[in-house]
Amino acid sequence: GIKKHILVIPGDGIGPEVTTWGKAVLEHIAQAYGHEFTYDEALMGHAGIEATGSPLPDETLEKAKASDAILFGAIGHIKYDDDPSAKVRPEQGLLKIRKELGLYANLRPIMLFDELLDASSLKPAVLQGTDILFFRELTGDVYFGEKNRSEDRNTASDLMIYHRYEVERIAHKAFEAARLRSKRLCSVDKANVLESSRLWREVVQELAKQYPDVETEHMFIDNAAMQLVKNPKKFDVVLTANLFGDILTDEASQIAGSMGMLASASIGDGTGFFEPIHGSAHDIAGQNKANPLASILSVALMLEISFGLKEEAKSITTAIDKVLKAGYRTGDIADTHTEADKVLGTEAMGKMVLQFLAT
Amino acid sequence: GIKKHILVIPGDGIGPEVTTWGKAVLEHIAQAYGHEFTYDEALMGHAGIEATGSPLPDETLEKAKASDAILFGAIGHIKYDDDPSAKVRPEQGLLKIRKELGLYANLRPIMLFDELLDASSLKPAVLQGTDILFFRELTGDVYFGEKNRSEDRNTASDLMIYHRYEVERIAHKAFEAARLRSKRLCSVDKANVLESSRLWREVVQELAKQYPDVETEHMFIDNAAMQLVKNPKKFDVVLTANLFGDILTDEASQIAGSMGMLASASIGDGTGFFEPIHGSAHDIAGQNKANPLASILSVALMLEISFGLKEEAKSITTAIDKVLKAGYRTGDIADTHTEADKVLGTEAMGKMVLQFLAT
Ligand SMILES: CC(C)[C@H](C(=O)O)[C@@H](O)C(=O)O
Ligand SMILES: CC(C)[C@H](C(=O)O)[C@@H](O)C(=O)O
Repeated sequence: GIKKHILVIPGDGIGPEVTTWGKAVLEHIAQAYGHEFTYDEALMGHAGIEATGSPLPDETLEKAKASDAILFGAIGHIKYDDDPSAKVRPEQGLLKIRKELGLYANLRPIMLFDELLDASSLKPAVLQGTDILFFRELTGDVYFGEKNRSEDRNTASDLMIYHRYEVERIAHKAFEAARLRSKRLCSVDKANVLESSRLWREVVQELAKQYPDVETEHMFIDNAAMQLVKNPKKFDVVLTANLFGDILTDEASQIAGSMGMLASASIGDGTGFFEPIHGSAHDIAGQNKANPLASILSVALMLEISFGLKEEAKSITTAIDKVLKAGYRTGDIADTHTEADKVLGTEAMGKMVLQFLAT
Repeated sequence: GIKKHILVIPGDGIGPEVTTWGKAVLEHIAQAYGHEFTYDEALMGHAGIEATGSPLPDETLEKAKASDAILFGAIGHIKYDDDPSAKVRPEQGLLKIRKELGLYANLRPIMLFDELLDASSLKPAVLQGTDILFFRELTGDVYFGEKNRSEDRNTASDLMIYHRYEVERIAHKAFEAARLRSKRLCSVDKANVLESSRLWREVVQELAKQYPDVETEHMFIDNAAMQLVKNPKKFDVVLTANLFGDILTDEASQIAGSMGMLASASIGDGTGFFEPIHGSAHDIAGQNKANPLASILSVALMLEISFGLKEEAKSITTAIDKVLKAGYRTGDIADTHTEADKVLGTEAMGKMVLQFLAT
């Protein structure tokens, strides 16, 4: 067995309730496979602001650096969304921790559970066989470039900027992943308009020469957003910048039937960071309605990527598969075929996964 | 009857072949309704570069300013896409003419022809009843902000920038359109991260007070890209920035079954500019395969928006509706139910529309 120290950051909205079940699954795995996981907890986002005034309290950052992996919930609060002039914002916490931990590569696998083919708004025939792995750059782009507001407040700007090394390091990761998959990589940019995209494309073209066994394609973001709906099967590894990745991966969540089914891993220089791609969903927070599967799948990614525990990770996806095959659903993935008594709340779904893990 | 002077800019790739049929329909309308349309032709994009070295020759711009409306085909060439360091690029022609003519508002209606419900990758039940009108800002944003490349060529940037007046003028147009439709407007931004989006949101919030009869909603771009697939019916008028609009409207094209069915109108300070939203599609250029319906629908938009000829515009969409009801399709919108002999090439489809217009 291995020994690991995990920091749990529940965050905002539905974050705490879904993370509870991610953690419960972690603990179940530890016991079943004889590993020793210790835990700590910390604040971020709106929760951080309320308690300390900061969306990323110093203590959280220290604990993050001292941990072997981080399980995160969700961030954001409607209060700030309606007030564009707020100086302190929950999201700053997430952006800052990404930067401070050097989490430059955000991996978002779009896996399709057969049982959920009907939950998508896309036709089953279009979806069948789709398996995409997104590599979204996470510490550069217009997210982190200089922001400006003129004194009269009538002009506002954000600098979209990339350095060669930033593109190189994530591109290498994506090419390596492509090698282990179907050997196809699609790099998405807007090189017909943006200088930063032209640098992006140049670097990816250069690196592609070092991976002659990988078939590399370049696509404009507008076309990619279209093709993803039209024919998602054509994609395998997709490599893209921070902003384009934010948009494309949310769009792609509809392939998996629901955002509630998608996990992501942020990796880079140090500690790995694992989180659902869904947001804080304040409209259903605290109502025992949220789908905990994305948090549980985030745990599977943690076990595989940060701890190298493939079998353990696989046991989680298998358990979820069985839960779905048995007909259980949370509200977001239920459809007309779902039996009424198999639509579960957060807690019941979490327990159901634990039960199937145990068998 | 009215007298109008129309500039035709066929452009690149499939541009010339589809524009031929847009123009033929214009001429048919002129004769049928007793209007007098005169025409001129000009170069842009790759065609402009080949002939004059410039993607927007001076002569084209002069002719554009002197015309009452412009019918444009498509722009772009694969040659430049593969060469990110090319200094002169076809797309510069399109960007420059948008700026020079002050075409700050790009209207992209996503109309659904009942007959094409099956051609989409989205489920018919998800699509049914969808009717969206996009207002994409067209002369600002990261498209026109300062571009930089460091001397060592290792750093590249584009400035994402908005001025209050730029947001105001397009927002007014969108609110006015919402008033005449279902009185719902959704403004899309990334105000949780971008300063330019925070200005955007502030301005739209302020203006919304002048349109109390319009229900205004704000949505983050990642969420909008997701919702558009999940539940397109929830949108009516969508207002967004240049880059986000580029991405969202291409994605939305899949709602209409194909990019080959979508037209757009760019309006602002002077002459209106009408074009299909599809690109130059060099892979099928010159093969009599392209769908001319987007060009023909661009003509319908021109008649309605620039010339106020509603009845004439309606006769075009009605004719297209009949052509589709009769089972005729181009390759991009054909499906398993299409009879083999009803799959038409560009020319046959163009003629078919003329024939149905005449009856
Ligand atoms: C909350 C927000 C800042 C964040 C982002 O845009 O990166 C989120 O949408 C995500 O994708 O992780
Ligand atoms: C060709 C390109 C510059 C253009 C754009 O990005 O605006 C096109 O995609 C469009 O949407 O009209």
